[in-house]
Amino acid sequence: MKCCVIGGTGFIGSHLIQALLETGRDVLVIGRKEKNRVNLPGGVAYLQGDVSDAEFIENALEGVGEIIDLAYSSVPKTSFEDPLNDILSNLPSSVALFNAATHFPIKKIIYVSSGGTVYGEPLFLPITEDHPTNPISPYGITKLALEKYAKMYFRIKGLPIVSVRPSNPYGEMQIGFVGQGFVATAMASVLMQKEIRIFGENGTVRDYIYVGDLARAIVAALEYGSPGECYNVGTSIGRSNLEVIEEIAVLAKKNAIEPRISFMPHRPFDVSANILDAEKLHSVSGWHPLMGFREGIERTWEWYVSQQASGQY
Amino acid sequence: MKCCVIGGTGFIGSHLIQALLETGRDVLVIGRKEKNRVNLPGGVAYLQGDVSDAEFIENALEGVGEIIDLAYSSVPKTSFEDPLNDILSNLPSSVALFNAATHFPIKKIIYVSSGGTVYGEPLFLPITEDHPTNPISPYGITKLALEKYAKMYFRIKGLPIVSVRPSNPYGEMQIGFVGQGFVATAMASVLMQKEIRIFGENGTVRDYIYVGDLARAIVAALEYGSPGECYNVGTSIGRSNLEVIEEIAVLAKKNAIEPRISFMPHRPFDVSANILDAEKLHSVSGWHPLMGFREGIERTWEWYVSQQASGQY
Repeated sequence: MKCCVIGGTGFIGSHLIQALLETGRDVLVIGRKEKNRVNLPGGVAYLQGDVSDAEFIENALEGVGEIIDLAYSSVPKTSFEDPLNDILSNLPSSVALFNAATHFPIKKIIYVSSGGTVYGEPLFLPITEDHPTNPISPYGITKLALEKYAKMYFRIKGLPIVSVRPSNPYGEMQIGFVGQGFVATAMASVLMQKEIRIFGENGTVRDYIYVGDLARAIVAALEYGSPGECYNVGTSIGRSNLEVIEEIAVLAKKNAIEPRISFMPHRPFDVSANILDAEKLHSVSGWHPLMGFREGIERTWEWYVSQQASGQY
Repeated sequence: MKCCVIGGTGFIGSHLIQALLETGRDVLVIGRKEKNRVNLPGGVAYLQGDVSDAEFIENALEGVGEIIDLAYSSVPKTSFEDPLNDILSNLPSSVALFNAATHFPIKKIIYVSSGGTVYGEPLFLPITEDHPTNPISPYGITKLALEKYAKMYFRIKGLPIVSVRPSNPYGEMQIGFVGQGFVATAMASVLMQKEIRIFGENGTVRDYIYVGDLARAIVAALEYGSPGECYNVGTSIGRSNLEVIEEIAVLAKKNAIEPRISFMPHRPFDVSANILDAEKLHSVSGWHPLMGFREGIERTWEWYVSQQASGQY
């Protein structure tokens, strides 16, 4: 019985595949990139194709028992620039996947949503899963719509699908300057001596979760999540952009560099704070984050420094 | 200042245009049909075009002060048969419309959502606007997603957009056998001596609102609705399919015909009951339904009988 990861070649995917292999699973990755451009651990199968192509996905799911849908073609920033592309490049493929999955004896399917965007401006903190969902980005709206399709396919067709809502992941292998991932962009900026832009007095407050903890949470939801339900994945701790930069500054000092910050006015499309309560996932699976923020930031920084040494930045 | 109705040539649209004309408004209708296939009251302008075409809609909105978005290319039944088409034929055009509207000095824009589908299985009755929204049809999901875009464009760009959530409209000019509109399908079935299928013991319970009352509610939301908010439009009264048929049977008896009913098992994609509390719209606008169910059914029946006399059924 294979565990199939859709979009498993990105930042979260590479950590997730590691976590799945550690549980002894047989992993198949499906992606849009050509096979020779994909770097996967030994023993992991790869299939190139378009998930919204009904014939392709029906063939690909033969022998598959678990599915994790990680693929997404946009980030909040690009979704503002082109909301129609955010719809067209994300909704049809995941809906086609859910629909195709109803034809197979799937044990569990995980849809990776976005706890950082589906709630919108918080009415209370930390945010629990029953908080109203009023996203303020097209990205958050399509993520939320896909959660609703997931719930509907469970209700109507019995598809055992679980949604997870991660807060803001960070860690090794996250790429900077793509409009998502403040830690990555801040570290890359420090190393390149570029200015880090902060919007508002201390910037926004986010719940930063180490990507290894997120990968374990997805596996926990795969093993223990109740179909039709959604689960926050976060740390219950919020940190402002300025606090993150202060942590990075301590490490940068050893390399004799200093962050350069420019302060900009608050942007209307940033929620002021996003901190998630993950007690629901903890109570069904025992999962909780293991990585301390300081240690996670150190590991990530070391990865960035090694990338710079290899000419990446 | 023109009031622009997108998709104004259908069942609700024709009643709405009448209500708008009665308030003295200058009405422009935008639709996909050719002009010579559209039947509009004198003085109403018509523009044929595709709303998702940015250049077309930017030109069309010149001089427009109010917009009502009624266009929808699917009904719940067809959305199940082809969920991708439900996405592709509805989301891009309304999002493009909202986006284009941000470039004009629009006084108010109304998005006509669906109170009959966005809530899903009710946790309490009658349903208020803060009830959870977990649609169990693709149609309900795309309607809900468009409400979220509406709210986002208000929050981010200040677009003065209001969503209305009608219950189940019925009345003259509703067409039967299109997978939506139980009253229309039941009346047409009786007149054609076709069996009416009821799913479950008494069928589902719905909140039937006379289309003239709905048209006045949309005008009330246009005049008094608060931007960023959504408003139920319903009667707070639920009727089972069987109760509706009993009302029709009284009228049919005069024509010496009798409804023929076949009972089918309950369908998993039907919510058992949907009854809406419209106190929120009442409190801001004074609107409330004026048409009694018996009188509304009588008018609708008379229209159907006249249609049959003219060879329509």
